[in-house]
Amino acid sequence: MDALPQAAAAPPQSMDALSALFAPRSVAIIGASGDATRIGGRPIAAMLERGYAGTILPVNPNRETVQGLAAYPSVAALPMVPDAAIIAVPAEAAETAIAALAERGTRAAIVFSAGFAETGEDGAAAQARLLAKARQHGMRLLGPNSLGLFNAAQGFYGTFSSSLERGYPVVGPIGIASQSGAYGMHLFSMARDEGMGLSCCVTTGNEADVNVGDLIGWMAQDPATEVIAAYSEGIRDAPSFLAALDLARRNRKPVVMMKVGRSEVGSAAARSHTASIAGDDAVTDAVLAEFGVVRARTTEELLDIARLATRRIYPVGNTLGVLTVSGGAGVLISDAAQAAGLPMPPMPESAQQALREVLPFCAPQNPVDCTAQVLNDVSLVGRFADALVKDGGYGSILCFFTHAGGAPSIVPRLRGELRAMRAAFPDRLFVLSVLADPPLVRDFEADGFAVFPDPSRAVVAIQAMGRFGDAFAAAPPAPPPILPPVTLPARTPSEAEAKRILSEAGIEAAPERACASADEAVAAAEALGYPVVLKILSADILHKSEIGGVLLNQMDAVSVREGFALLQQRAASSVPGARIEGVLVARQLAGGVECILGVHRDPVFGPVAMFGLGGIFVEILKDVAFRRCPFGEDAAEAMIRSIRGAPVLLGARGRLPADIPALARMLSRLSVFAVQAGPQLAGIDLNPVFAMPEGQGAFVADAVIDITEGAA
Amino acid sequence: MDALPQAAAAPPQSMDALSALFAPRSVAIIGASGDATRIGGRPIAAMLERGYAGTILPVNPNRETVQGLAAYPSVAALPMVPDAAIIAVPAEAAETAIAALAERGTRAAIVFSAGFAETGEDGAAAQARLLAKARQHGMRLLGPNSLGLFNAAQGFYGTFSSSLERGYPVVGPIGIASQSGAYGMHLFSMARDEGMGLSCCVTTGNEADVNVGDLIGWMAQDPATEVIAAYSEGIRDAPSFLAALDLARRNRKPVVMMKVGRSEVGSAAARSHTASIAGDDAVTDAVLAEFGVVRARTTEELLDIARLATRRIYPVGNTLGVLTVSGGAGVLISDAAQAAGLPMPPMPESAQQALREVLPFCAPQNPVDCTAQVLNDVSLVGRFADALVKDGGYGSILCFFTHAGGAPSIVPRLRGELRAMRAAFPDRLFVLSVLADPPLVRDFEADGFAVFPDPSRAVVAIQAMGRFGDAFAAAPPAPPPILPPVTLPARTPSEAEAKRILSEAGIEAAPERACASADEAVAAAEALGYPVVLKILSADILHKSEIGGVLLNQMDAVSVREGFALLQQRAASSVPGARIEGVLVARQLAGGVECILGVHRDPVFGPVAMFGLGGIFVEILKDVAFRRCPFGEDAAEAMIRSIRGAPVLLGARGRLPADIPALARMLSRLSVFAVQAGPQLAGIDLNPVFAMPEGQGAFVADAVIDITEGAA
Repeated sequence: MDALPQAAAAPPQSMDALSALFAPRSVAIIGASGDATRIGGRPIAAMLERGYAGTILPVNPNRETVQGLAAYPSVAALPMVPDAAIIAVPAEAAETAIAALAERGTRAAIVFSAGFAETGEDGAAAQARLLAKARQHGMRLLGPNSLGLFNAAQGFYGTFSSSLERGYPVVGPIGIASQSGAYGMHLFSMARDEGMGLSCCVTTGNEADVNVGDLIGWMAQDPATEVIAAYSEGIRDAPSFLAALDLARRNRKPVVMMKVGRSEVGSAAARSHTASIAGDDAVTDAVLAEFGVVRARTTEELLDIARLATRRIYPVGNTLGVLTVSGGAGVLISDAAQAAGLPMPPMPESAQQALREVLPFCAPQNPVDCTAQVLNDVSLVGRFADALVKDGGYGSILCFFTHAGGAPSIVPRLRGELRAMRAAFPDRLFVLSVLADPPLVRDFEADGFAVFPDPSRAVVAIQAMGRFGDAFAAAPPAPPPILPPVTLPARTPSEAEAKRILSEAGIEAAPERACASADEAVAAAEALGYPVVLKILSADILHKSEIGGVLLNQMDAVSVREGFALLQQRAASSVPGARIEGVLVARQLAGGVECILGVHRDPVFGPVAMFGLGGIFVEILKDVAFRRCPFGEDAAEAMIRSIRGAPVLLGARGRLPADIPALARMLSRLSVFAVQAGPQLAGIDLNPVFAMPEGQGAFVADAVIDITEGAA
Repeated sequence: MDALPQAAAAPPQSMDALSALFAPRSVAIIGASGDATRIGGRPIAAMLERGYAGTILPVNPNRETVQGLAAYPSVAALPMVPDAAIIAVPAEAAETAIAALAERGTRAAIVFSAGFAETGEDGAAAQARLLAKARQHGMRLLGPNSLGLFNAAQGFYGTFSSSLERGYPVVGPIGIASQSGAYGMHLFSMARDEGMGLSCCVTTGNEADVNVGDLIGWMAQDPATEVIAAYSEGIRDAPSFLAALDLARRNRKPVVMMKVGRSEVGSAAARSHTASIAGDDAVTDAVLAEFGVVRARTTEELLDIARLATRRIYPVGNTLGVLTVSGGAGVLISDAAQAAGLPMPPMPESAQQALREVLPFCAPQNPVDCTAQVLNDVSLVGRFADALVKDGGYGSILCFFTHAGGAPSIVPRLRGELRAMRAAFPDRLFVLSVLADPPLVRDFEADGFAVFPDPSRAVVAIQAMGRFGDAFAAAPPAPPPILPPVTLPARTPSEAEAKRILSEAGIEAAPERACASADEAVAAAEALGYPVVLKILSADILHKSEIGGVLLNQMDAVSVREGFALLQQRAASSVPGARIEGVLVARQLAGGVECILGVHRDPVFGPVAMFGLGGIFVEILKDVAFRRCPFGEDAAEAMIRSIRGAPVLLGARGRLPADIPALARMLSRLSVFAVQAGPQLAGIDLNPVFAMPEGQGAFVADAVIDITEGAA
């Protein structure tokens, strides 16, 4: 893996303590209540009802029994050291209890108690004390201010959520990892209402210790969890989060994630809600994509993708074949597939011809409209499906049978045909879009089909399966290049110095010379060849064009001489006291495409590289691509090709195609440079970079390396 | 209304015959069957089961009774003239039956029979005969190849769809108008499964006569229909379609429409599926928006919007206030609102302060996070809702209570509080996002709330209500300007002639002169002022720049003279035989923004104007706006401001703001010109147009008027 520390490959060290949290053999409830509707009563009632096989140890100084179980007056009085404890007492008492439990050797605590970091400075201090005590004894903390968790297979219910009032989950392969308690339980409730099977649901609350990344990492190794559905407002610890995503990918466990705060409004709300750092949303997008995580836009989409993923069929290079009894629905599905970026290549001509011979008025291109005739002769379904798989070669097949797929007059005949199709092609992803009563839907699911009443929702979920497939199958990316060590100056260097530093990393500038006098400037211009560009040279003036410090198109010695004087004068009047080193004379690059390459330091993920085209593309259209540094040339080229304006580089409007390999080389080198430069580097702007026509390279025309003084 | 013929305001003439179709007092079934599962048996069985109050007249030459009803051997033998007839016999017999029925005076026929235009030329001819016979006697035809219709309130079931096997609709205010039979019944089935109330569902099939526009027009006047849900692959008759949309808007009946064929793949599928003209999707978008129709992207979205619309609360200038028990869900809702374009302004500071005093740890900005505390003290719900309406002034309020809103321990207290809130603010749109059992959901709905388990779906539907509100409240647009009559030449004119014709419509070109000799060109350049542009002048060379026929930046008499000769030579060698009239000398406009204005003739909607910025904006980013011609300056300005690149015109990147009023004037005039020019006009390209800085006008630099010869 390109950017992960070696340690990422090893399981998290805290595996055992986390297992005590997820699957304890014994659990103490501090603040146990005999009232099954109270915070300290709900977990006990739920565990009794669901047959938790471990030992439940209620702690309550005022009662001998709680809900029929022997109760103990204190942690000290417990007859054994519980693997885990649930803390259902106010904040102050929670601190005392955690200390006592940690000292006795309890490995994990689920802290329901509120009144910590979410309430302000005093609470944050109390939370820090809680954490310090736990860490001292190797205890893991879930929360505080957490709604808790459940492990459905174990019947372990360490939660007081009212969501359980309407029913418990079916045991199944989906694990839910959520920062938000209410939203995590919202996910669980929707999943339960749709009959989806869950392994566990964990909510991290204030994340003093255990965070969403830890949960993903644990679930990536949990045999009961095959699909991970995650929710987060902000990533607290990038290395553990990235290591967890990497582990999930290597274990072929799809991660579908809701990371809120996409919009500016949403980001502001995310910051006010928790102490999270929401980060830049486009950076989050890039990081999740890098690890094959599918980012869901809505709750429904998240659950749809998780549900389809439990089929464990992840087509590589996914394509969609559609079999429909309605031409209209076929068009609608085509629209949805295009919007989702899911290819629907046409059937081969010969296969189309063969199907027309079977059913004259069918439209066999793809969508394959087999018309309502197949409902009279269901054997046609098998015939058409056979052609879709064998001739069309589609990775996924969506069958739109609408209400006919649920009609008692049709279903008995249809179902047998569908089962035969499913059995014939076990490696294909088959999805039915039918409207049927719930028992019949369950029958179809037992037959190996996913069922989506709305075909548009099916398309979005099918597209996600291909993304998982591609991520699981992807070869490791090419390693980033190895560069000589980078030594940054103590403060932000001048343009010429910045270019010199970059050139040592193989990032080339346009031919240019620093000139201290007008005579030197003329000599340089004659040597470089006209036209030239003149730029004021001063470490005190970073944004030269804002003060008129750049003169383009200088065609002869006279204008170079005049230009030299003009720039001195402008600099002196605009930035009084600036140390002016002279003027930079550069050959003006003609015929190149103006690009911007940059690096900024993301508060969560560290140095992140950006690529975009110059001018309006970046400033008005925000048409840029991001990627976490460092990365190799293949990743850089993918970034370059991913922007909307990429056709400008590929030869649109009669241009010559640009030298994309040279541009990718520069971007990749920049990403390594940014990492090697260390925390002292605040950011880099290469603006503009000229991507010359194919084979002629790419050159930096202006460079700023921004240094955080004293950060080294 | 700007572009509708006067007649649009009157109800469609065919009202009576359409009523015979939708709500007949008597219906004959040609091909009546005693078997309730056959095409000729299903409608009878359904009407008997649902208590159709009219007279059912089975026609079957071989039986005395059908399903217990007296049957008649032929149309001639019927004891009365039925208002309507259902044709459930093969195509050939259908022709005979239609003729007999039309001659007896039956007003409407529902033709199930297939084998007409959808099968090829012979079928199309048969369909034409069917239509001619019906027209001759003033009979309206639904179909052929139609799945039919139902009118739920009447119990009239003129359909053989198997969708009825799983249940009949609840009677309610939503009418479904669908071109596709299978998809229309898919919509009905989903609506029924969700318990939505329907007035009717009509599917038009081949649309020999009655089309989706007719259905919308009828439903716009039907007292039982309050909300119209429509589906179409292509509009066949623009005037009746537009008149129907206009009528629906004036009657305050929301229309939500699925128009498939958005994507290129989808458009291709739409064309292969029916004989429809799918039209340009961006044009369809513009036309639907013009009439306040909301275009749904998915079936689910269409039904969500229709369901919420039955609340009949359409906020003008809609804003969203969110009350949530989960901060995470608040962020998610903010993201969804931003993506949907639904504003969520913050609560006033003073109101936020007041709420903080009520509940110290709430986050009262908007989303207003009232925390799970409100579930302990539900009176807080009323207090917070009061602040959202009175202080926040939001048109719509979304309350996210998730599973807590369905929990037996909470609901009894919560529901009373919600009812009081609903009663206090009857003009606001209240939506609950709760997870509850179906009976409780129905209770909430009876209390006046719409319920959406997924808050993101709620946001999309709420945004649509505001669009309906704005459309219903909109003042009539400013009328298009009145221009002098347009007379086009018989064939495509030269650039100079095109500009002269446009100038008569007040569309100004940059100052320029047509020059037949180099001497004239030099004199013109001296008079206009340098720099000038030289362009070859020939009606035979439309795309001058492709042959190097444009020379920019001519700075003096020598270059003008040389340029004149060069252009003559290039034209002669590139287009041998072209009639060359000379060279156009124009002042070069500096400091303007390059724009493209154009008109093309849409096959469905006639002349459609386009606006975009020059170069990559149009060619690579497809960043353009369309509008049906003609339109006034306000609509033109809205088009100009709607493109993504609009900041370029508004003064981004240190530019001077462009003269948008002048640009809007030109665009509006162009739209009137295009209509007045008549069918002979194939298209117009004004490319580039220079929008000069504010107050300095906008000028056409190059113009092509493309004429269809012989089309006048």
